[in-house]
Amino acid sequence: MVDTVDRRIQYIQEPVQEQLDQVVERLRGLASQHHAPSQSELLESAAFGAGKKLRPALTLLAASFYPCDPENIVTMATSVELLHIASLIHDDTVDRSSMRRGRATVSSRWGGKVAVLLGDYVFATSATYVCDTGNVRVIRRFSETIMDLAKGELSEHFSTHDWNQTREDYELRTYNKTASLFCTSTESGAVLSGAPEEVCQALKSYGYQVGMAFQIMDDILDFQGTEEELGKPVGNDLLQGTLTLPVLLFAERHPDELVLRRLKEGGTDVADLQKAVEMIRNSAAISDALAVADEYRSRAFEMLGGLEDHRARRSLEELTEYVTQRRS
Amino acid sequence: MVDTVDRRIQYIQEPVQEQLDQVVERLRGLASQHHAPSQSELLESAAFGAGKKLRPALTLLAASFYPCDPENIVTMATSVELLHIASLIHDDTVDRSSMRRGRATVSSRWGGKVAVLLGDYVFATSATYVCDTGNVRVIRRFSETIMDLAKGELSEHFSTHDWNQTREDYELRTYNKTASLFCTSTESGAVLSGAPEEVCQALKSYGYQVGMAFQIMDDILDFQGTEEELGKPVGNDLLQGTLTLPVLLFAERHPDELVLRRLKEGGTDVADLQKAVEMIRNSAAISDALAVADEYRSRAFEMLGGLEDHRARRSLEELTEYVTQRRS
Repeated sequence: MVDTVDRRIQYIQEPVQEQLDQVVERLRGLASQHHAPSQSELLESAAFGAGKKLRPALTLLAASFYPCDPENIVTMATSVELLHIASLIHDDTVDRSSMRRGRATVSSRWGGKVAVLLGDYVFATSATYVCDTGNVRVIRRFSETIMDLAKGELSEHFSTHDWNQTREDYELRTYNKTASLFCTSTESGAVLSGAPEEVCQALKSYGYQVGMAFQIMDDILDFQGTEEELGKPVGNDLLQGTLTLPVLLFAERHPDELVLRRLKEGGTDVADLQKAVEMIRNSAAISDALAVADEYRSRAFEMLGGLEDHRARRSLEELTEYVTQRRS
Repeated sequence: MVDTVDRRIQYIQEPVQEQLDQVVERLRGLASQHHAPSQSELLESAAFGAGKKLRPALTLLAASFYPCDPENIVTMATSVELLHIASLIHDDTVDRSSMRRGRATVSSRWGGKVAVLLGDYVFATSATYVCDTGNVRVIRRFSETIMDLAKGELSEHFSTHDWNQTREDYELRTYNKTASLFCTSTESGAVLSGAPEEVCQALKSYGYQVGMAFQIMDDILDFQGTEEELGKPVGNDLLQGTLTLPVLLFAERHPDELVLRRLKEGGTDVADLQKAVEMIRNSAAISDALAVADEYRSRAFEMLGGLEDHRARRSLEELTEYVTQRRS
């Protein structure tokens, strides 16, 4: 185990650092292809924030267990990061966020119209890159992932302030909005490396478990720390009406809590929502949610059990730890 | 030649009517798959307006010259229509249009957030359908088309009120925003029918010519008729700062026109724009633009020259006439 965030990320990326640099180079190349200065500035701005490149690292690491065409894998990893960037552009647009990765978002700098169209362009570019792999299974999985992302965000929108939703609804939504792309990142790497089917399935499932843990941690972190650390109000999700795992677990344990009863009856009063945030952040729902994330962490480790004892496996283990221990 | 619009469309669709009905059925099936009522209502609303289904008809007609797997072609035609629907959802969102095909747009009924996400979902669904064809050439061309569409809309946005743009800029933008999908519609049909490469190229080029003519006619129609007929102000494109072919041709002929000089110097005065609209609609620029559309029409006919004398060829000829003679 490694201590600081930077050193942990460095340790994770180490066995695939060279390929990861190629991914960044390709992203840069893509931005500079455009003659219109505005467009290349757009892509630059969208692509080169301080992202940790976890998803392309997952693709590259998952491809490391069998000898494979390195060119193809770098292409795939680039697509995965492009898809992630495209989804961030649209998320920031629909959520009207002004900052991302320490920079002004596309929508705040150029407006919603440009952000929608640029997101479309980057989605399509990512899909075109995947076509270069020539592998129809991977290409198809990729399009399905874009469907999943949109489905996840739509269902989050339509379940706002819906206190009838279940943990299963939350899990499906979390799969769609986050874990699906993690799955695709690892599965595509494994498939393109020519790994046997059981290895592909194990790495796909590993991606699923890590992706679920990642999102649950995100949802927990929303209740922790201070407004200053988070860069947004504590409990922002709930204040916006998004019911995440800590909320659902709290509601299960406290069915008769007065504030919750008002909210369940359709209330959206800000003072009530703020009270609920306070109660949840000081309740056992947080440790309950952490325990759920920890189950996903354990299952992720299990999935690595059958893999060869390779440096890339150490990175995947460290990535799992990092995801469930991160503080931001 | 056939006289009324409905009878013309009927004549065009006749040889592929059965398959076109299957396309509509699949679109309907897609909408009903969704458990969330809101989502299926969304798709219903987006998919079943009074569109003329020109693009899927092009795919089906282009596939009619060689014996082929009808299932595959219907899948392809469905993707093409889905892609068109997705692009309309996003266009209406970014342009803040309230009506489309006689219905309220997704963005006006459910808001921009839902419209952006639903558009993403429909784009991805269309791409997933194409994967069912298993043909990587067609799959790739499809993703490139989505890139083209976004590029076209972005460059239209960035060239607003830009009087330095050339006819070449206009042509490239018109290819990206309109003709690219027409090309893909015909090329994919031909490729999947197993037609020889020269036939694929001829049908692709036919799609290009018809698509260019279609958009130029759109740009001309914007200057014709009355506000009542158009459902928007006459010359709406120019009023919004979009310089189309009639505008560029007028500017070429009248470099010293006072109103234009003010606009070229960066003016965006509404009264000046309205004066320019009046001048253009009463000028030879309209017949000049019609002559350009007619050149595309002729080249489209030429491209059909090498095809077998088949009923589908009559439909493609009629479609070409329809596109260049339509009044709405």
